[in-house]
Amino acid sequence: MGPHPAVAAIRLAVRRVLHDILTEHTGTRDASPGVPPHERPPSPLVLVACSGGADSMALASALAFEAPKLALRAGGITVDHGLQPGSDLRAEEVVLRLRELGLDPVESTAVTVGREGGPEAAARDARYAALDAAAERHGAAAVLLGHTRDDQAETVLLGLARGSGVRSLSGMAAVSGAGGRYRRPFLELDRQTARKACMVQSLPVWDDPHNADPAYTRSRLRHEGLPALEKALGKGVVEALARTAQLSRDDADALDAWARQAEAAVRDSAGLLECAKLYALPPAVRRRILRRAAIEAGAPAGSLFARHIEEVDRLITGWRGQGAINLPGKVVAQRQGGRLVIRQG
Amino acid sequence: MGPHPAVAAIRLAVRRVLHDILTEHTGTRDASPGVPPHERPPSPLVLVACSGGADSMALASALAFEAPKLALRAGGITVDHGLQPGSDLRAEEVVLRLRELGLDPVESTAVTVGREGGPEAAARDARYAALDAAAERHGAAAVLLGHTRDDQAETVLLGLARGSGVRSLSGMAAVSGAGGRYRRPFLELDRQTARKACMVQSLPVWDDPHNADPAYTRSRLRHEGLPALEKALGKGVVEALARTAQLSRDDADALDAWARQAEAAVRDSAGLLECAKLYALPPAVRRRILRRAAIEAGAPAGSLFARHIEEVDRLITGWRGQGAINLPGKVVAQRQGGRLVIRQG
Repeated sequence: MGPHPAVAAIRLAVRRVLHDILTEHTGTRDASPGVPPHERPPSPLVLVACSGGADSMALASALAFEAPKLALRAGGITVDHGLQPGSDLRAEEVVLRLRELGLDPVESTAVTVGREGGPEAAARDARYAALDAAAERHGAAAVLLGHTRDDQAETVLLGLARGSGVRSLSGMAAVSGAGGRYRRPFLELDRQTARKACMVQSLPVWDDPHNADPAYTRSRLRHEGLPALEKALGKGVVEALARTAQLSRDDADALDAWARQAEAAVRDSAGLLECAKLYALPPAVRRRILRRAAIEAGAPAGSLFARHIEEVDRLITGWRGQGAINLPGKVVAQRQGGRLVIRQG
Repeated sequence: MGPHPAVAAIRLAVRRVLHDILTEHTGTRDASPGVPPHERPPSPLVLVACSGGADSMALASALAFEAPKLALRAGGITVDHGLQPGSDLRAEEVVLRLRELGLDPVESTAVTVGREGGPEAAARDARYAALDAAAERHGAAAVLLGHTRDDQAETVLLGLARGSGVRSLSGMAAVSGAGGRYRRPFLELDRQTARKACMVQSLPVWDDPHNADPAYTRSRLRHEGLPALEKALGKGVVEALARTAQLSRDDADALDAWARQAEAAVRDSAGLLECAKLYALPPAVRRRILRRAAIEAGAPAGSLFARHIEEVDRLITGWRGQGAINLPGKVVAQRQGGRLVIRQG
């Protein structure tokens, strides 16, 4: 009798990703077929980032099961955000559970969460910095993250609320980080399956109280926003949002590539942007070029909104002698003699 | 003392659109400056489509106020969908109200709502057919529609639920229909402003019971989905969704243009799609070409989903000798000798 369908699903998802990781490392491994085993470089290490919650515990269990079959080493890391009393004990408990699954090395790493960008962004920044450091320290080939299709749907809605176009709708990537370090095997798997897999494997899971705390936007979205949307639009909403993420990512990539290419063609010999040539481009491409130029001139990407770019765009499409436009980061855009000059003022 | 801010806002929105319409008709008007007034062609007629609800009543009032100042004729049309008992009397009442505003011609037109595509789509199809016919009959230069920013936000969410990418997120266009007949002056105005403008002008408005009927997806979205989303994500959601519509529309237009251009370059001398050349394109562009080819071969656009196109795409990106792929409309896609053949089977 095979494993429970939920367990089969999480293992398949992890197996696929481990195959990818292995393929990418094949070069190193096959380079030394005549070298005796004890002199070969150690097999690649894959870490799982685990909070102790159902998603990442399911991920850890699947990694522990699949990695040995592919002669990969599997380890785990848990981040103690220090946001609740006793979080250090909690982290130690997760370490024990990961060791019980057979993962090695396993460690807990404590971080100090700042305040920049709000509590959720600050916690995320601290977490990824710690994971990056751990991956470097252990020479890990990859770090697996337990984000599910439900997390992806929430991320798309959070992006939608920013209203800044396809890039913000493209959610989380299956592969991200420096050198493609981070992998998300569960992006097409629903949260319910991960939870079920833990249950049937008798894995104890920990529900982070933050996930249910209405002070957090994502938590409100999960427990109120998304269910209400499902009630109005039907059950397929999560899947539709996840598909939107993938399609949006591809669209955003293609348009960015086009903008990069077009940018070279609209600059004059002095490297200035020619308004007439910009005018001839589709608005979506033109605005991407303008955005890139503003960022290159020093405008912080996070503070540069669609309305800023629209105002700069009107120097091209609605020219009536308007003055210089102030952008975030003390960047100034103005039209001079048929050229668009964007620089730090 | 000027008008109430809400009234000023609706009038400004309408004035801008009337200016556009006038500019487009300037050629005809200025062609005959020496002709005596009574022999000149009549000034362009602009119709308002009015249900009697707050949005379209506000629109009608603004049109009645602004059109004479630009020497435009202003008329109104109301569609009796025949979906409720007494809907004909209701339509006659709307006709009277539009006449009281000074609009002329004003008429009510009765339609028979079919069943295709569900109750909302069927009512919409019947309505636009009737508006098209009325516009033709009266030789109208344009038909104004009262859709607000809130309607736009709802339309984006409805598109999101389809999960079929940026085109479905692009909502309603400010200008649409044959020859740009339909104009939506209120797309950037919120519903509350239209309602307020009716109130301060003492215009009686009629609340369509369908708008509050939870049997309709849009109504559930309006009264439950969107408020819950606002509660989770904050007050700016409607604005963000409307902005997403505009950005998505521009992106979709640019990518469609790219796909049209690229398509010519990936066909061989016999007009067949070359797999190697398709492979080299960005996925977003390639999939648009595949979609276009499937529709050209006879697949109905409405039944052609992202998963269909993905499967065809794997003939290019994941070729392992797979067989022919069946698409809606009896269209078959298969790879033969490095070419992709898509035709009705």
